[in-house]
Amino acid sequence: MPLQDFSKHRLLAPGPVPLSEKVRQSLSAPMIHHRTPEFEAILQSCWKNLQWMFQTTQPVLILPTTGSGGMEAVMTNTLSPGDSVLVVVSGKFGERWKKMAEVYGLNAESFDSPWGKKLDLAGFEKKLQSKAYSAVFTQVCETSTATLHPIQEMAALHRRHQKGLFIVDAITAIGCTPLPMEEWGLDGVVAGSQKAFALPTGLAFVALSEKAWKANSHSGIPKFYLDLKKEREANEKGQTHFSSSVTLVRALSVALQEFQEMGLDSLLKLIHKRAQATREGLTAMGLKIYSESPSPSVTAVEVPSALDGAKLRAHIESQYRITLMGGQDHLKGKILRFGHMGNISPDDILASLEALGLACRDFGLQDMSDEKIQSALERAGKILK
Amino acid sequence: MPLQDFSKHRLLAPGPVPLSEKVRQSLSAPMIHHRTPEFEAILQSCWKNLQWMFQTTQPVLILPTTGSGGMEAVMTNTLSPGDSVLVVVSGKFGERWKKMAEVYGLNAESFDSPWGKKLDLAGFEKKLQSKAYSAVFTQVCETSTATLHPIQEMAALHRRHQKGLFIVDAITAIGCTPLPMEEWGLDGVVAGSQKAFALPTGLAFVALSEKAWKANSHSGIPKFYLDLKKEREANEKGQTHFSSSVTLVRALSVALQEFQEMGLDSLLKLIHKRAQATREGLTAMGLKIYSESPSPSVTAVEVPSALDGAKLRAHIESQYRITLMGGQDHLKGKILRFGHMGNISPDDILASLEALGLACRDFGLQDMSDEKIQSALERAGKILK
Repeated sequence: MPLQDFSKHRLLAPGPVPLSEKVRQSLSAPMIHHRTPEFEAILQSCWKNLQWMFQTTQPVLILPTTGSGGMEAVMTNTLSPGDSVLVVVSGKFGERWKKMAEVYGLNAESFDSPWGKKLDLAGFEKKLQSKAYSAVFTQVCETSTATLHPIQEMAALHRRHQKGLFIVDAITAIGCTPLPMEEWGLDGVVAGSQKAFALPTGLAFVALSEKAWKANSHSGIPKFYLDLKKEREANEKGQTHFSSSVTLVRALSVALQEFQEMGLDSLLKLIHKRAQATREGLTAMGLKIYSESPSPSVTAVEVPSALDGAKLRAHIESQYRITLMGGQDHLKGKILRFGHMGNISPDDILASLEALGLACRDFGLQDMSDEKIQSALERAGKILK
Repeated sequence: MPLQDFSKHRLLAPGPVPLSEKVRQSLSAPMIHHRTPEFEAILQSCWKNLQWMFQTTQPVLILPTTGSGGMEAVMTNTLSPGDSVLVVVSGKFGERWKKMAEVYGLNAESFDSPWGKKLDLAGFEKKLQSKAYSAVFTQVCETSTATLHPIQEMAALHRRHQKGLFIVDAITAIGCTPLPMEEWGLDGVVAGSQKAFALPTGLAFVALSEKAWKANSHSGIPKFYLDLKKEREANEKGQTHFSSSVTLVRALSVALQEFQEMGLDSLLKLIHKRAQATREGLTAMGLKIYSESPSPSVTAVEVPSALDGAKLRAHIESQYRITLMGGQDHLKGKILRFGHMGNISPDDILASLEALGLACRDFGLQDMSDEKIQSALERAGKILK
């Protein structure tokens, strides 16, 4: 011990994530102007490949914002002040939908799903039967608790009982878990560049269903910078509404090309395998997975109750040079989160498991034996093969 | 002839602009997380150096948007629906302020300054005496017409007659022309990364005066993604409100460091010299500068009436590999715009002048003689020495 090389920095956060060599190279390419035939060809390729990623025939818009800007755009472009909406709140990002809805004058109710628990589909159905909502908002994966929601089932229930829109934050879901937008009947889907797309932060990707575009035509919340109709109209002329980030969009075209070559199924399988290896490894070390419905994009592990999770995280960063994320709000110090997206290697995963084991011991956790750590690495290693 | 090398691509647009080698290298650096001490140090250095660029003691916020997002943020964070505002409209970007104000329910009046003409200060003063406005919005440089407005004088007149805010779009001004925010009494200043900062598009920089922050506390336009108070509060904890674009902010820290080493005066002088050389060269070729009040950041030249400016621009791009910009709206085909910001060399400027001369001749402009082009290059060359 230690078995892994802790001299290099490893980033295993649920976004941002390590970039591929090709993407990094593209980021340093000389600047070109965004109103040129050369750049229009890049945009066209991105738009086409994003439709493939989202599994939709509707346009996927590229917005010069973070994922939260994309969430805001979907909400403000489909609704009007006073509209009744239902928000699934199962963590920090569900709370974000809720706060946003309140800021924009929507009449927002919550469907509270306890943090880290399986979403109660029967309870959700009952809520959907209770009244008509102009829209229902949810996360696909609630990143703060590393919990995956049963979106296909939720969308089907929604369709059975509601006439409004079903809108999902898929920021840590697209490219991680199956989410065929049209097949499942999703009306709004939002993604962000620094997650499975393995790009720098700064772009959001947004698609609306035909029904959502109809809602857009009479949506009364004011918007200017995030006006999706204007964006779509500009796209139809081969342009973006405001200046495109040439550097980020060019990198997007490279990343999407890589995914195309790999195939969407292979990408999902790869990320799934990393999640599985991490979970098996953590379990082999005697640790408990926090979520009842773990996500393929991120795994949360409970910090042993004798230890302070914030200190543990900082120690893993400084001593083993691995960036993991802690918990937020009432989960602060209680969980550690391992990201599975982006260009991470099997070694990165094994190193993260070993580092956590060694760090627990550094803080005096006696029963984290060499054997336990060894067995965790073996089990994870087998899956990653 | 030709005297210049037309084999390499040269970008002389008023944004985006060529990046420095150091900035390009930084863009391809490995990803790190935005919630780390390492990244906080980068943010702190950016915040400090932006205050130096803006010449303010107030915080300068870094927003993950283009410049237009920054414009929206200043407006929606300081005003309430129904407020009376005055917008200086002297081109496409003044129209943008106006449309934005209308979308957000402001009671917006225009002060129309004819495109490319000197702003009529007496008329502006009269307008300011006519009634009380919650805010006055203007461009420092109206990029669409390459016209610089007399901001110091306008701000002084505003202070004399008005109690509200004086807010400037300085997107093609900061780093190009003196604009000491506090000394001149500017209440809101917006900049964008792809202009004098010589970075990729994707960041806006926004500063408010103390008076504007007071207005913020009772501003009633809803905002969430672009909530400046939340951003400021996050900054006070060493963080940003939403995910930072690590890649772009890291590049910003490199660019700001370069400007610090160079000095603000030297940066302004350099850009001023490029503008002067371009204007003298164009005049020597017998062409007319479009604006009566030319900007240091961008020069617009009138296209000889016998020629189609759109075809001329495309020809310069394809034949001489130089990207210039054309005119917008009613100036389409009538002007060509040369940008002076970013990492452009004296050779780039000479090549752009020669390319324009040769292209005019390619389209049959007989009196564009070798001697005229030669004399233009000599005059520009002397200034650039």
